[in-house]
Amino acid sequence: LALRNLKLVLAYDGTFFNGWQVQPDKPTVQGALAGAVERLTGEKVLPQGSGRTDAGVHALAQVASFVTSSTIPLTNFAKALNDLLPPSIRVLDIEEASADFHARHSARFKTYQYRIFRGEVCSPFLANYVFHYPYPLDETAMIEAASSVVGEHDFTSFAAADPETQREDRIDPRSGNDSDNTRHGNVRTICSSSWKRDHTANELIYTVRGNGFLHHMVRNLVGTFILLGKGTLKREEIGRIIDARNRSAAGPTAPASGLYLVSVEY
Amino acid sequence: LALRNLKLVLAYDGTFFNGWQVQPDKPTVQGALAGAVERLTGEKVLPQGSGRTDAGVHALAQVASFVTSSTIPLTNFAKALNDLLPPSIRVLDIEEASADFHARHSARFKTYQYRIFRGEVCSPFLANYVFHYPYPLDETAMIEAASSVVGEHDFTSFAAADPETQREDRIDPRSGNDSDNTRHGNVRTICSSSWKRDHTANELIYTVRGNGFLHHMVRNLVGTFILLGKGTLKREEIGRIIDARNRSAAGPTAPASGLYLVSVEY
Repeated sequence: LALRNLKLVLAYDGTFFNGWQVQPDKPTVQGALAGAVERLTGEKVLPQGSGRTDAGVHALAQVASFVTSSTIPLTNFAKALNDLLPPSIRVLDIEEASADFHARHSARFKTYQYRIFRGEVCSPFLANYVFHYPYPLDETAMIEAASSVVGEHDFTSFAAADPETQREDRIDPRSGNDSDNTRHGNVRTICSSSWKRDHTANELIYTVRGNGFLHHMVRNLVGTFILLGKGTLKREEIGRIIDARNRSAAGPTAPASGLYLVSVEY
Repeated sequence: LALRNLKLVLAYDGTFFNGWQVQPDKPTVQGALAGAVERLTGEKVLPQGSGRTDAGVHALAQVASFVTSSTIPLTNFAKALNDLLPPSIRVLDIEEASADFHARHSARFKTYQYRIFRGEVCSPFLANYVFHYPYPLDETAMIEAASSVVGEHDFTSFAAADPETQREDRIDPRSGNDSDNTRHGNVRTICSSSWKRDHTANELIYTVRGNGFLHHMVRNLVGTFILLGKGTLKREEIGRIIDARNRSAAGPTAPASGLYLVSVEY
C-alpha cells in the first residue's frame, strides 16, 4: 500500500469557525477538513496545521499536511475537497510532500498581518475582517517603533497567560520536535515587524514575520503598539516589556477579526 | 410635541440576517433597527424600508423612515444607533424628511446589482458576497441581451410564484398607495438593464434600475440570463417569457448572496 504525504494550502474565513483545532460539536477548520477527507477517501485522518488559529482569525495561506493511501490524482483531490468543504474554506493548492514533511514541525517562518480600519464608520462588509479603531493614534510613532521587537527574544510578555496554550504555535526547525518541547521555552525570533499606512483603504496594517509565534502573540503585539499610538507607552519601554517576561507588562489582546495568517515558509 | 420624520440610509451585510422584515426570534434588519431606536429613544417604532430584502441579500444604501418625538440631534442620533446596532448594519446617513415622506411609498427608482464570480475557485472571503458560477457562459450573449427587458412590462413571469409575497416591493409613485394596491398588478418599468465584465475581479455584474421590483424579480432575471448564457435560451425568447406572465416560463432564482440593493431614488 503506497502512502502519500499531502501538503495542502488553505484559505479560510475565520468568522465561521471556532478556530483551527477540532472540537466536539463546534465548527472548526481542522474538523471540517478531516470530515471532507474522510468523505472523499474513507480514511479517518487528523490533518496537521502549521499552527492553530483562534476563532475569528483568518488565513490566506494556512498549510496542512496528512498521510493518505488514496490514489486520487492531486488535481481531482483538490476539486473534490472543495466540493465537500464549506465555501468558507478553500483548498488553494495540494502537492505531494516528502515523507518527513510535517506542516507544523517543518515550518521555518510564518508571516501574519493585522488590519486596523481607521475610518469613523466601518462598512458592514468589513466588520469581520478588520479591527475597527477610529480613535486618535500617533501612527508615526507606531510605524517608527515597529522594528523594536525584531530579534531573538523571550516573548512571554506577549504570550497568552494560560500556560497550556502558550506554546501551541511552537516552531523548532532544528529539533523537529513537537510544540510541547520546552527546550527553547518562549524564545522566538521576529525577522521583520512593520506598520504601514494604506491611505486608499484607510487602514493601518501590521506585518510580522518570525520563526514562530506564541498563542495570542501577534494580537498582543498589536495591542501593545496601540498603547504606544495612544501615547500611554513610550518606544523605550518596549525593551523593558520584553525583559519583564510577564504578560501583565504588555498591552491588551487585539480582537481576532483583524488577524490573517498570510504565509508559511518551509 | 414636535414629531420628526427621519430618513436613514443603511448598509448591511445580509449574510447575518433573515432578511429585512421583522420576524419573531430571528435576526432581521428591521428588527435590529427597531430595537436600536427603542433603546435610544424609548419609543416603539417599526422603521419602514424602501422594500424588503430577503435573507442573504445585501444593501449598500437601503433607505428607511420612521417618525420620532426624540429631540436628539441628527449627528448624535446616527452615532448612537451605530453604537447600538450590530456591526453588520451601519447607518450611513440620517436626515429629517418632510412629513409626507415614506421610504417605500415615496421611492421613485431603485438600482440593484448582482455579482457572479467566474473563477474556478472562489475565495472564502467572497463566498457570501457573490454567486460563484465557474461553468461556461456565453457572456457576450448575456451582455447583448441585457436591454431586452427594458420598458414597461407585466413581470409576472419573473415574480416569486407565492402570491402573498409577489408585490412586496411595489412602488407606485403616482398613487402613493401601499404595496397591496393591485391597480397596476405586476406591471413595472425597467429603465436600464446591463451586464458588464469586470476582468480584474473576474466577475460578471448585472445592474438594473427600475421604478419597482417584484419579489425575487432581480434574481429571476439573473437566473433567466444565465440560461441564455448557457445557450438553453435565445434572446428572442425573452419577449415570449415576459408575455407568458407565468413564473414557470422564466429561469431559476439565482442565489441571494450575489444581490445588492445599491440605491433608492426619491
